[in-house]
Amino acid sequence: MKYLESIIFKEERLMILDQTLLPEEIKYIEINNLEEACDAIINLKIRGAPAIGVMSALSIYIEMKRLENTIQNISDFKKNLENAIQKIGKTRPTAVNLFVSIGRIKDFFYANPISSKEEGMYHLKRIALEFFEEDKKLCESIGEYGNQLIFDGANILTHCNTGSLATAGIGTALGAIYTAFKKGKKIYVFNTETRPLLQGSRLTSLELNYANIPNTLVTDSMVASLFANKKIDMVMVGADRIAKNGDTANKIGTFSIAIIANYFNIPFYVLAPYTTIDISIEDGSQILIEERKSSEITQIKSCKIAPENINVYNPAFDVTPSRLQLLQIEGYFDIPLIFLIL
Amino acid sequence: MKYLESIIFKEERLMILDQTLLPEEIKYIEINNLEEACDAIINLKIRGAPAIGVMSALSIYIEMKRLENTIQNISDFKKNLENAIQKIGKTRPTAVNLFVSIGRIKDFFYANPISSKEEGMYHLKRIALEFFEEDKKLCESIGEYGNQLIFDGANILTHCNTGSLATAGIGTALGAIYTAFKKGKKIYVFNTETRPLLQGSRLTSLELNYANIPNTLVTDSMVASLFANKKIDMVMVGADRIAKNGDTANKIGTFSIAIIANYFNIPFYVLAPYTTIDISIEDGSQILIEERKSSEITQIKSCKIAPENINVYNPAFDVTPSRLQLLQIEGYFDIPLIFLIL
Repeated sequence: MKYLESIIFKEERLMILDQTLLPEEIKYIEINNLEEACDAIINLKIRGAPAIGVMSALSIYIEMKRLENTIQNISDFKKNLENAIQKIGKTRPTAVNLFVSIGRIKDFFYANPISSKEEGMYHLKRIALEFFEEDKKLCESIGEYGNQLIFDGANILTHCNTGSLATAGIGTALGAIYTAFKKGKKIYVFNTETRPLLQGSRLTSLELNYANIPNTLVTDSMVASLFANKKIDMVMVGADRIAKNGDTANKIGTFSIAIIANYFNIPFYVLAPYTTIDISIEDGSQILIEERKSSEITQIKSCKIAPENINVYNPAFDVTPSRLQLLQIEGYFDIPLIFLIL
Repeated sequence: MKYLESIIFKEERLMILDQTLLPEEIKYIEINNLEEACDAIINLKIRGAPAIGVMSALSIYIEMKRLENTIQNISDFKKNLENAIQKIGKTRPTAVNLFVSIGRIKDFFYANPISSKEEGMYHLKRIALEFFEEDKKLCESIGEYGNQLIFDGANILTHCNTGSLATAGIGTALGAIYTAFKKGKKIYVFNTETRPLLQGSRLTSLELNYANIPNTLVTDSMVASLFANKKIDMVMVGADRIAKNGDTANKIGTFSIAIIANYFNIPFYVLAPYTTIDISIEDGSQILIEERKSSEITQIKSCKIAPENINVYNPAFDVTPSRLQLLQIEGYFDIPLIFLIL
């Protein structure tokens, strides 16, 4: 399967595809330290809940490697590690995978005494790479499961970007689409541009073209029109954080699509790895929704598209409530993915 | 009431505010002939169903005035008039006001024999100016009626632009908002940016700021989030064509908002003059929906925001079905406006 990798870790170097330059330029940049990692996450050079999780663990390793020579003892090691974990934990609040990723590192070092910084570095690398490999495998699994939902000839609507650019593997919702296409199913994908940051037009259109999957781009406002014209058989989206009751935070606009799909009686699937489920929160009301800067709405690149000094509301995510789901989540940790069906 | 005029007709000259330059530049351009008029309509230098209707009638007059000296006789006059009517009738298919406007001219000259080109010019000007004045008055009426729906403290969501830039007067949905504000009601307006052509962020935000009405801009994808956070008490939009059964064609995205408003049990009002009702069609399925060029979605001004050679679906309007309405339309021609309540 031909796809664009979001994260490359090779010969102790961490490279990410700078997604802010897409679709014009495919350029990998090296992450040399934690500051560059935080900047990359905050400014969406890398995005997508699973990709952020993987990249965070690898970035902590890269940072500790940079500091390794200056670290004197175990206490120093732990202090620097804790510092790195805290800093990267403040980059973006909504996607839970980041916290799962750094939580694994924290948990390991809390539970296991280590005797040297070398041992610490060994385990740090091991945990990060395991998380990386696990995400790839989860994507494969989601692809296999999701493929079963896709019939030959299906027209699928997706939102935002949930492909190889959003994960360490082939993706979640887009992973299912890749898998169905690879198995020879004739499918057609409609994808929303996903304002404000255009992950749909900039990233998903690029991924679909790159993989030769037939596709059409629409604006977010065209969803009801697509359904009304019977162009859509199912909706497949990803997730940034799923509460215990199934309420799902995902890219802003997801909830609108879920309501519209429900109105037209079209299946609405959320495809996500178990790392996206946050069993510590009861429902979606407890999910912190990141609000981002107004310039994301008032200008596109250098083009101003609104008057000066305008008030803007810019939540990056919305929460699709579980009460819209027909199929409840079962066995969080027994299956590598969940489907929420509206 | 301080507002930006979309059309100025003064001393036999027709000027329009070039809306493609907004919000950066407020510049009126003169329409000297039919070709310029058609270009202005096709390229959205002027838009909004009522404004297009008024501008079309005035443009036909301007064109005929330009040709007046070369016109030899009544037969010549009628031939040129018919030609102008046909050309301007081909500019945009969905908004019905254009066809109402040119229909009035056609009907008059069909029903009434004229004896000289001077007489023809007199009636042409009279009909165009009457249509202009009528639209202003309809806006005032819609404002008064619509104001009754707005309670003190209301938070109103609107879509696209339905203000002075979309009509010859103060607007339809925005006309009601202007009127409520003028009467001292404390109101707050949320407006969607309205992709692809951003009439919300470029035009409505500008109008609201210009009139000092408190407002916040959101993307089209944020509508469900706004409702979920209880920020909206009612929706007010305009219309481009309303079928006999009440099905309403309006700017793409309107139908999505109607479904979401319905889901949250929030009133959804369509405010339009009777000139927007097309009693010749039974329902919305007969409304021709204009599809526009893909570059409206793949680039914003000079900024490219999608890969090259991508497929795009770009309908300019959608149809909100009458079966969502609680209040049926009554007495089409007895009242100057209708409210459709979802």
